[in-house]
Amino acid sequence: MTSPFADCPVPRFDHDRVLLGHGSGGRMTADLVGGLFLPAFGGKRAADLEDAATLPAPAAGERLAVTTDAFVVRPAFFPGGDIGRLAVCGTVNDLAVAGARPRYLTAAFILEEGLALADLRRVAASMRAACDEAGVELVAGDTKVVDRGKGDQIFVTTTGVGTVPAGRDLSVRNARPGDRILVSGTVGDHGVAILSVREGIEFETALASDVAPLGGLVEALLEACPSVRWMRDPTRGGVAGAINELAAGSGVEVRVREAAVPVRPEVRAACEMLGLDPLYVANEGKVLAAVPPADADRLLAAARRHPLGRDAALIGTVAAGRAGLVTVESFVGGERLLPLLAGEQLPRIC
Amino acid sequence: MTSPFADCPVPRFDHDRVLLGHGSGGRMTADLVGGLFLPAFGGKRAADLEDAATLPAPAAGERLAVTTDAFVVRPAFFPGGDIGRLAVCGTVNDLAVAGARPRYLTAAFILEEGLALADLRRVAASMRAACDEAGVELVAGDTKVVDRGKGDQIFVTTTGVGTVPAGRDLSVRNARPGDRILVSGTVGDHGVAILSVREGIEFETALASDVAPLGGLVEALLEACPSVRWMRDPTRGGVAGAINELAAGSGVEVRVREAAVPVRPEVRAACEMLGLDPLYVANEGKVLAAVPPADADRLLAAARRHPLGRDAALIGTVAAGRAGLVTVESFVGGERLLPLLAGEQLPRIC
Repeated sequence: MTSPFADCPVPRFDHDRVLLGHGSGGRMTADLVGGLFLPAFGGKRAADLEDAATLPAPAAGERLAVTTDAFVVRPAFFPGGDIGRLAVCGTVNDLAVAGARPRYLTAAFILEEGLALADLRRVAASMRAACDEAGVELVAGDTKVVDRGKGDQIFVTTTGVGTVPAGRDLSVRNARPGDRILVSGTVGDHGVAILSVREGIEFETALASDVAPLGGLVEALLEACPSVRWMRDPTRGGVAGAINELAAGSGVEVRVREAAVPVRPEVRAACEMLGLDPLYVANEGKVLAAVPPADADRLLAAARRHPLGRDAALIGTVAAGRAGLVTVESFVGGERLLPLLAGEQLPRIC
Repeated sequence: MTSPFADCPVPRFDHDRVLLGHGSGGRMTADLVGGLFLPAFGGKRAADLEDAATLPAPAAGERLAVTTDAFVVRPAFFPGGDIGRLAVCGTVNDLAVAGARPRYLTAAFILEEGLALADLRRVAASMRAACDEAGVELVAGDTKVVDRGKGDQIFVTTTGVGTVPAGRDLSVRNARPGDRILVSGTVGDHGVAILSVREGIEFETALASDVAPLGGLVEALLEACPSVRWMRDPTRGGVAGAINELAAGSGVEVRVREAAVPVRPEVRAACEMLGLDPLYVANEGKVLAAVPPADADRLLAAARRHPLGRDAALIGTVAAGRAGLVTVESFVGGERLLPLLAGEQLPRIC
């Protein structure tokens, strides 16, 4: 994003669709930035954009946290959100579950020639709203355009920078036998919402993505229980994927009680119809946490007090057992493995 | 990038090509990370990757600098470099010209199903080498896969985090009448190298991209001349684009002397054949600087002492004149405008 042209007197921004020239770094790029991105994102820093944004350093004792994610979700607009909201929330949530307070965000767009500018405007507005909701500031950006047929409308890569307060040390290597596993709400909402529109499936009740910024919920949980050892937002790969990482990372067994896992009835119905296990379906507004047993009830109560944690539940236990394995006590009482899936269950879910 | 599987005993990484499953967040993603990215990028932090990397904060008095860029260059491999080297250098250089010392880098890959893994391995190795050369550490990453025909082999988005020492204040708004403009070397090398392979044009002498990390050169220049007011790496839009930003940002006229602009004879020949003005052609290893007139010769001498600045030249002057305009005194003595181009001269040049 180049800025000096932001306040040119006559913005010549009269196109309907993205053209290759919008990625040229020339006048058309400046028009796209000045005519679409800056009005959408606003803010003093956006208008000042140099090649790099300069920002105040964290306070003494804090560490930096940095994370990045590419978003290629298909379709770009879906019930409950769009690729813009997803790109902001996904990255902000990766910071939050690392114990960081999200501060700054960058966004890089890869646009396919022919994308409707109205769609781009919608995505930018959605990103701005999500940034406001998450309390982060968009500080740098970039736009590239690829020829028709060499992209898929819009890809967004966001990078988040946050600050980790002194003393916080959440890690996938921290879980210990006896720890309890909390999930902050219903499982599988995002993946099923995407799949329902992609496959053109109609359900009686509306399915919607849970995509939301989790910074506030995470702060509330850590304030109530500083003893929390690990957190993760179970996106691609779902709850099963995240818990497998924990089992492998900490060298422990994790036992999940299927009956304790909250799943919306409509999501369960859709999963049954589509042959999916909700434990493997992506979420974009849920957090998993491992906590020492003595603090588990306090953590649960703290989660349920937060609007994004109302349906929170304790769904599993860490055991010394078979290191690296995740097992499920099923509805009917039997035990089965919950392995990491090999390939995709739902491609381009985020 | 998830890490806990990095040290699994039997990495099952036996594919030749990227499959959709490699972007699933499941076992195949873990295999790609553990079997390809971690060996390529190495380093303790890479192997420790959580959802977000935590890093030491800048020293007291320093500010943070953050920048992001998407890279979609076509073809991905070209004389003098590849998309990996370009993605590292392009982002590191945006930090450097902001006066920041590049420290950390993140990389997000959008891969097209069917990409040869050998190509991905080559790109990763090239990124690692460029990171080492630039003195930055790759601290976080992400990989997504899109279906065949919805991408173009490989797109890479890099975000850089650097630290700005106290007292540095480079800005596109800083230029004042009398300032001299320096370019650190020959102009147009990158764009012409890309175009030559893209169009299958053969030249008698080899054309090669100038893609290189500029942090060392920039530090040398700022050490010799702390009075430097502005720097920019003239990528998309070339020298003309960057100087137009300066003229607009500082509300000044900039006068360029065409005969002073260093251009390799083979680049000039190629430009003439292709109908291009080298001043508009992208560079990936050059820096422009504006400096008060009293310090111009010292800046030039400092540039020429550095291996990446041997061909440096003073190519223009800032004037009060017509605010926002860039003019060129041509070879034959006449004056012409050097406007910001509307659209693309060379799409997908970076």
